Amino acid sequence: MKPLANDLNEAIAAKIGQKTMPPGALGQLILLATQLARQQNSLSPSADPIEFFVFAADHGLATEGVSAFPQAVTGQMVQNFLRGGAAINVFAHAHQFALQIVDAGVASPIPRDPLFSALIDRSLGLGTKNMLHEPAMSTQLARSAWSAGFALAQSSEAKILGFGEMGIGNTSAAALLTAALTGQPLAHCVGRGTGLDDISLQKKLDVLERVWARHETVLQPVKPPQIKAESRVATSSKQLLEAIAAVGGFEIIMMAGAMVGAAASSKIVLVDGFIATSAALIADAACPDVRDWFCFAHQSAEKGHRLALAHLDAKPLLQLDLRLGEGSGAALAVPLLRSAAAFLNEMASFSSAGVSPA
Amino acid sequence: MKPLANDLNEAIAAKIGQKTMPPGALGQLILLATQLARQQNSLSPSADPIEFFVFAADHGLATEGVSAFPQAVTGQMVQNFLRGGAAINVFAHAHQFALQIVDAGVASPIPRDPLFSALIDRSLGLGTKNMLHEPAMSTQLARSAWSAGFALAQSSEAKILGFGEMGIGNTSAAALLTAALTGQPLAHCVGRGTGLDDISLQKKLDVLERVWARHETVLQPVKPPQIKAESRVATSSKQLLEAIAAVGGFEIIMMAGAMVGAAASSKIVLVDGFIATSAALIADAACPDVRDWFCFAHQSAEKGHRLALAHLDAKPLLQLDLRLGEGSGAALAVPLLRSAAAFLNEMASFSSAGVSPA
Repeated sequence: MKPLANDLNEAIAAKIGQKTMPPGALGQLILLATQLARQQNSLSPSADPIEFFVFAADHGLATEGVSAFPQAVTGQMVQNFLRGGAAINVFAHAHQFALQIVDAGVASPIPRDPLFSALIDRSLGLGTKNMLHEPAMSTQLARSAWSAGFALAQSSEAKILGFGEMGIGNTSAAALLTAALTGQPLAHCVGRGTGLDDISLQKKLDVLERVWARHETVLQPVKPPQIKAESRVATSSKQLLEAIAAVGGFEIIMMAGAMVGAAASSKIVLVDGFIATSAALIADAACPDVRDWFCFAHQSAEKGHRLALAHLDAKPLLQLDLRLGEGSGAALAVPLLRSAAAFLNEMASFSSAGVSPA
Repeated sequence: MKPLANDLNEAIAAKIGQKTMPPGALGQLILLATQLARQQNSLSPSADPIEFFVFAADHGLATEGVSAFPQAVTGQMVQNFLRGGAAINVFAHAHQFALQIVDAGVASPIPRDPLFSALIDRSLGLGTKNMLHEPAMSTQLARSAWSAGFALAQSSEAKILGFGEMGIGNTSAAALLTAALTGQPLAHCVGRGTGLDDISLQKKLDVLERVWARHETVLQPVKPPQIKAESRVATSSKQLLEAIAAVGGFEIIMMAGAMVGAAASSKIVLVDGFIATSAALIADAACPDVRDWFCFAHQSAEKGHRLALAHLDAKPLLQLDLRLGEGSGAALAVPLLRSAAAFLNEMASFSSAGVSPA
């Protein structure tokens, strides 16, 4: 993978400068259109076709009471996705994009139902191990999760990929990854997830401090001291692999692999909220050029998300206080991507419309 | 017009609470769905049909050099709208809503062309007078502009109305109205409009300070000292009429009338940027219950917009640094309204999906 070329930059700016509007008047939509054009190396980029993958898996740590919901909800929600009843289904229907559900390692069996045609089975086990006592998975399983995600993204025929997740307990894994990969204190990365009260939040933080202590030797060295994304320094793959194997989860690592697979096949990655951004931190640490393919959709209400976004120098398109996951924030940004491509492709120029410039 | 009833509030909250997601997890989209349901007095609100009106008019003050663009651009852009080449056309096409262009008083003649089927002629003159020397219009013309807007909104068959505007010089009128109707200092309400540099911005401020001094007796009393929208105190209609006649413009007053006409016929008003919000301030001052029908779409980059929004206790859905007008910010919020209605109408409940609650 190489950084994006700059060959078209002047031509893109010239095309936008000729549109019948004051200079810069479409604000962030101009940045977005420019990014789409650069990523697709075209003055007429397209925001379609779009495909979403929701990666689902369970977390051994869920038994420690780090979530407001029981572990069984992961599998129940996967069935809800497959029946079309969840928020991401509603948004996929409203905004017309393809949606696949990936079992990356759900603890409860998903019934084989002919109606469940959107299910992709890449299960790596019935949830991860309890990382309070041992690594969430072996480094071999982490490699497998990564490779499965990479291959899924590579084989998609869409131009833009959105990635969502479902996994009771996965804000815990995301908080640990965010702390390890940004160098921020763990306590700043731990939030209420699906809605913990103050007492449960403190309990979650206590559990995660113990997890951190248990795995400090593999998590601590990952901390890139003040090294931000733009420096394009890849973390040692052995360090990174041990760290992500320690905390998991299957769905996060598979998503990180999918992000790199997408970028490697010149597809744009629509990055969702806190958990998806922790996958983006992994992908960025492994392969900094992947950053060029990210489009950040939504700044979530979850506490650590702001820090993860700052580390990636990202300014998301939406701030709607969502904290749902499933790729819901990415889904709501889809119409903005289409709007950006449409203005670049369809708006008249000053000369074609006979409008006087400034 | 009456304030919205609260009868359905509990039923709406109960329906949303049963959706398969953690409590509050869809953030601002939940507030939006609740608002749609209350406005339509229905547990199954609809975000369609949607119709936009773009009101266009010229400003006598444009001759004082308050804009980066020449006055002729208003009429040229109206023709661009009618030919389908402007940003608002592209967004109307991308997001599938009806679009009408209203000549509220453009200075240059609009050719009668059979292709210009979206044109609605409500012209009140070839632009306003130069308010540096005299009121922008008579109070009689201000009444006519108001009534024309009111009738247009009343006769629309859409459930949601979006209002945009075009008028070289209209950030000047909007700045004066914002200062008069919020009580904020004029200098805090004056911004770069379509892109003034520092020197031209200072010149614009100087001109507007002179306009303010010329009309101080009618602008000053309008200032509601610390009275915010929620107090629901209507400004004296004589005071208000003299103030809006003093600064105009035709398109802003027609839009304000349209906002009240929409609310009076139980239609939701999608409020765009700085200039549309100055119309919302007028509508709110005349008839505070209209506020219940507003849905604020976008916080623009124009300086005074934040103050106008704060006065109306508004938190817009989008912050994309747009400063284009035409209703472009409102247009980009359309998919969010549809998303809000869709999740309320289509998402499964915990019981129907067999998902365990928290």
